[in-house]
Amino acid sequence: MAVYTRLGSEDMAGIIAAFDVGTLVSAKGIAEGVSNSNWLIETQDTNGEARRFILTMYETRTDISDLPFFLGLLDHLAAKQCPVPRTIHDRDGASYRLHEGKALALIEFLPGVSVSEPTAGQARAVGAALAQVHLAAADFPDARENSMGLKAWQELLGACGHDGLESIDPDLARLVEHELPLIASHWPSNLPRGVIHADLFPDNVLMLGDKVTGLIDFYFACTDVTAYDIAVTHAAWCFNADGTHFQPELSGALLEGYEAVRPLLPEERAALPILARAAAMRFLATRAYDLMNTPDDALVTPKDPMAFARRLQFYADAANEGIFVR
Amino acid sequence: MAVYTRLGSEDMAGIIAAFDVGTLVSAKGIAEGVSNSNWLIETQDTNGEARRFILTMYETRTDISDLPFFLGLLDHLAAKQCPVPRTIHDRDGASYRLHEGKALALIEFLPGVSVSEPTAGQARAVGAALAQVHLAAADFPDARENSMGLKAWQELLGACGHDGLESIDPDLARLVEHELPLIASHWPSNLPRGVIHADLFPDNVLMLGDKVTGLIDFYFACTDVTAYDIAVTHAAWCFNADGTHFQPELSGALLEGYEAVRPLLPEERAALPILARAAAMRFLATRAYDLMNTPDDALVTPKDPMAFARRLQFYADAANEGIFVR
Repeated sequence: MAVYTRLGSEDMAGIIAAFDVGTLVSAKGIAEGVSNSNWLIETQDTNGEARRFILTMYETRTDISDLPFFLGLLDHLAAKQCPVPRTIHDRDGASYRLHEGKALALIEFLPGVSVSEPTAGQARAVGAALAQVHLAAADFPDARENSMGLKAWQELLGACGHDGLESIDPDLARLVEHELPLIASHWPSNLPRGVIHADLFPDNVLMLGDKVTGLIDFYFACTDVTAYDIAVTHAAWCFNADGTHFQPELSGALLEGYEAVRPLLPEERAALPILARAAAMRFLATRAYDLMNTPDDALVTPKDPMAFARRLQFYADAANEGIFVR
Repeated sequence: MAVYTRLGSEDMAGIIAAFDVGTLVSAKGIAEGVSNSNWLIETQDTNGEARRFILTMYETRTDISDLPFFLGLLDHLAAKQCPVPRTIHDRDGASYRLHEGKALALIEFLPGVSVSEPTAGQARAVGAALAQVHLAAADFPDARENSMGLKAWQELLGACGHDGLESIDPDLARLVEHELPLIASHWPSNLPRGVIHADLFPDNVLMLGDKVTGLIDFYFACTDVTAYDIAVTHAAWCFNADGTHFQPELSGALLEGYEAVRPLLPEERAALPILARAAAMRFLATRAYDLMNTPDDALVTPKDPMAFARRLQFYADAANEGIFVR
């Protein structure tokens, strides 16, 4: 949550002038996203109407060569009425521009707030919106490998090391060393694949009441097992923040909402227990690595890996596999 | 530049419901202000109109007992057509509310951006706006002691110590030890006093072109020598950021703009050279103290005190006193 780059108002006005959106009226750096800088921009168009946008400057963690995939996906999904922001193309038709060596994109502003204590009605709406994205993305022509897949977790957790994981929690190394090979050997190879969001936490969903007004932050989107995206969303939505309490009514509503739009195949449903363990492992891996590798003076406070170790333990408990049975 | 407090959307909706401004549509934490948390809020009122506000949560550096002064001043100045945001009072008529022990206020959103490379036309407009505030505040009934006056600088610089100042720069201790007693002994006692902004840096002025659309961040406002506020604004606007280059055309325009609204008394003009040295000392003092006392893992990067040591040296050079003569 930070603005990493300072952009003077003169630079900002020049950047906005490259788009056909009117003149710059306001620009506020916003504390959103962990790896890019974002500004909430207001312009006045030639009719005197106020218009709002998010200007994103991609910092070191986003590879510019991935932007055509990410931004093209937003346009593809928006054209199919998915609740995602569209990219504003510049006067030359480009979806992003370069400014002093950094890429930036102007993105539609969407109303809505991110819920922190979701209700079942909200979980149901998010499930339905996720299914809508999966269906709408079926004919998206581009593909992108999942840079945060199994191989990445193995590398990140390997870099943490047995002792490093134990330094986080005495039981963490044992849990990881038991689960990681098991997930690897059980990773399903027979399931439908497609474009997935891969990071659909409540922070990345804008809502007004029970209505999803925006799915945002597609910067982990990639081509992978479709049902894995449900597992990620399940891990992100169906527990309290520290992972100590599973919330069965949210779980039921999320799956019900999803299936109302895109019914699961029997083999997808059967794979959800192992995919859920994989999803928990994915966030455990990045959080453990970040915790051990964030300098003390960093702007971003590392998140607790144990919140996802607890989810992993929950999913791994055989008695809990029944939560995915209907 | 940070949001220090996390406010869930459910809490936020509850807070906004205490004001008669419609329902919450969007809330983005903004990277503005160094000591408070701020959100840019959008609501929809009963006519379906979009409205925007800044919600400020006062963190530890703002004394709640000062809020009636700060917020009352905004309302007083706004009522007199000064370009300042007005405070939105809650349904009970209060200008601020408490939420879990912290005070928060809902403040009018104003268009405009903060310039980083001011032009003479912009400096002239800022001078005029400052004079307008000084005139409009004349009948504001409240008073507040300047908590960042001479006594505070002496304490802050004393806490840094001779060796501490030398550790920042080999010549800094000598400069401070020469200037500080000189400023103290020459501090004028015969000048008009009134409410001053006391921190009118470009960051605290919103502009559209050459027009001032908002003077913001009145959280150092206090009762002090009126002309000292001109000196602070001069030090803030008439140099490049690191203080290595004085910009005479901005200086001339700032003073000209001020005097077009409120002509200076001869004794005010005569005091500007010593008040400018005092203004530079004030920011040198807080920056030196902050640099020596900011933990390495702080969210805020300390600003360079030498940028104001250079301004102080510039003002102290007898040959430069002429810049305030017309």
